[in-house]
Amino acid sequence: MTIISLWIVLTSDTLKGKGDEILESIIMGFLSEVPEITFTNPLFCGILGNTLLSTIPGVSGAGATPEKTLLTPILDAELITRGAITSHPVRPDTPTGCPTPASITRAMLQLCGLQPLFINAGLRHTPTVPCLDVYGNVGEDPRFRTAVPNAYDLVKKGEIIGKILSDRSDLLILGECVPGGTTTALCIMRALGYEASVSSSFVNNPISIKEEICRTVLERIKADVITSPLDILRYTGDPMMPVAIGISNTYLGKLILAGGTQMLAVSAVIKALGCSLPYVVTTSYVRDDPSANVRQIADQIGVKIIFVDPGFGDLGHAGLARYCIGEVKEGMGAGGAMCLAALLGHSPAEIREKILVAVNAYC
Amino acid sequence: MTIISLWIVLTSDTLKGKGDEILESIIMGFLSEVPEITFTNPLFCGILGNTLLSTIPGVSGAGATPEKTLLTPILDAELITRGAITSHPVRPDTPTGCPTPASITRAMLQLCGLQPLFINAGLRHTPTVPCLDVYGNVGEDPRFRTAVPNAYDLVKKGEIIGKILSDRSDLLILGECVPGGTTTALCIMRALGYEASVSSSFVNNPISIKEEICRTVLERIKADVITSPLDILRYTGDPMMPVAIGISNTYLGKLILAGGTQMLAVSAVIKALGCSLPYVVTTSYVRDDPSANVRQIADQIGVKIIFVDPGFGDLGHAGLARYCIGEVKEGMGAGGAMCLAALLGHSPAEIREKILVAVNAYC
Repeated sequence: MTIISLWIVLTSDTLKGKGDEILESIIMGFLSEVPEITFTNPLFCGILGNTLLSTIPGVSGAGATPEKTLLTPILDAELITRGAITSHPVRPDTPTGCPTPASITRAMLQLCGLQPLFINAGLRHTPTVPCLDVYGNVGEDPRFRTAVPNAYDLVKKGEIIGKILSDRSDLLILGECVPGGTTTALCIMRALGYEASVSSSFVNNPISIKEEICRTVLERIKADVITSPLDILRYTGDPMMPVAIGISNTYLGKLILAGGTQMLAVSAVIKALGCSLPYVVTTSYVRDDPSANVRQIADQIGVKIIFVDPGFGDLGHAGLARYCIGEVKEGMGAGGAMCLAALLGHSPAEIREKILVAVNAYC
Repeated sequence: MTIISLWIVLTSDTLKGKGDEILESIIMGFLSEVPEITFTNPLFCGILGNTLLSTIPGVSGAGATPEKTLLTPILDAELITRGAITSHPVRPDTPTGCPTPASITRAMLQLCGLQPLFINAGLRHTPTVPCLDVYGNVGEDPRFRTAVPNAYDLVKKGEIIGKILSDRSDLLILGECVPGGTTTALCIMRALGYEASVSSSFVNNPISIKEEICRTVLERIKADVITSPLDILRYTGDPMMPVAIGISNTYLGKLILAGGTQMLAVSAVIKALGCSLPYVVTTSYVRDDPSANVRQIADQIGVKIIFVDPGFGDLGHAGLARYCIGEVKEGMGAGGAMCLAALLGHSPAEIREKILVAVNAYC
């Protein structure tokens, strides 16, 4: 591959050709900011994981029923890899007709001509596509027991993956799919001292349920005098987090964590460990969630966060338009995948068109 | 990475510097032949798998007991990835003091500065390092039941992996570790009509046991009128084989199958499917096995086979010297890894020295 980020041309005196389109994309507000990176060999990875928190009724909107949320990561990985879900009789959208963010990620990877790599951090169900597996377990309910008992081992496994991927790429877009993960993110960030409010895939964020879970968890953490960042993660995180942290520890290229509050929680642990912070990229729909305070958390952590605004409101698709009123908002690195497409020189118009065609094909 | 195969200089008029060393390596007979390939981004993968055939006493020498042969692939992957085996109380050599070929592979990847990627095709035990997992099963005993019932699905999973790796490399050295795999190879090749005799990790190849297994299997195949190559594989192969075939189907770069008779069996199926044949690279110890007819089989298949002769006889290590009298001989892509080091410009002296230092560190 011989792709160079076109953003570099913006610092030159002559803005023409692709440069103009990119300038326009900034003017149009597609990206809130252009990351100052160059790369020749980008890779998109999605970390898949489960936490039993998603099976508590009302916590997660990422599945038709609480139990079915455990299946969502493997269905999304199948959709992105194969272009369709044939292993289970489900549709890749919410009951209200919102397309899964995985369909956006799929569309962007097709536009970029890239094969995704999925990482299995700990899942209830067996994936239907090949995954780089760390042989972790489903995250336990942190109200009652240690959520990720083998967190330290998973960090080590993530570090091995970071080394492998360093040989294979110089830009890593690292997404995640962990239903219930905004609640583990809330617990982690609160335990680390952040005044965090987290986003949700529901239009109406189930704040009271999340707060109640978090209160119970923080009491356990306080009672057991748990203060080290990785021990907090062990107590109340999910399996995606230590794998992402391990990758961040050893990956030699540029790293973009593609996700909202969940990736801010990962960033908060990285910061607490004294390691260098990656970029975070998410959608404007996460930023605009009035029940969360994403920008403030990012500022407190000191992590650079970039927002992608694909303008789903006027695309002519009712389900995508629901992203604008706060449903789904983000997931499976969709924001990062759109950012990558822009970094590779695809115009906002091209990106929007590709997404529209892709989601229409499923509906 | 910006490595170009140095062999290309051999076709130019000026042989100097690295070119001289490489010429010397040919003269010294390190490689039986120089593959005509250029590359900039090599990747070493090892496919791990089990077949229950290795638990039949006397079939496999790849483990202290028949049952322990099932553990060997994950121990070898751990040794190569981490540099030591700490998960189980075992030594990385045979009871007679022969170093596992994985220690050779480890030494070569360190020399080349490359991180290996392991693929879990179907194992009894959970790997201790991250693996790209196709979620296959241990191969069944083909005397009594279908060995790889999901062989077709594993080919599809291998095809997905081939696409992923095509984005990430332009030369793939694909090794394997399947204890008992020479017996599945024998069954496959005989069922496809080859007059094959296969190699063994034992000094004294347990030919009569293998022949008896093969006779029973061929009777089942004949009785059920199984003739298509993938159905033969389903009946009597092991899980490594369909994954390797799937990768071969979609990988866009140059492919080297690193192994002896097992990789010839994979080549025989690829040939029977009408697909283009990769290179096969193995050690001279496999070629020189008087109980096998490796060169004849390769000729019959029409696959280009290259032999690496690392000259272990005079290295000053009693265990490595036993390779020359026919013990171990090859495994975990050791021959391919040595070939890769040579292709990257490392001299035979450098390669031999690195192997000696590595195996002495374990003993």
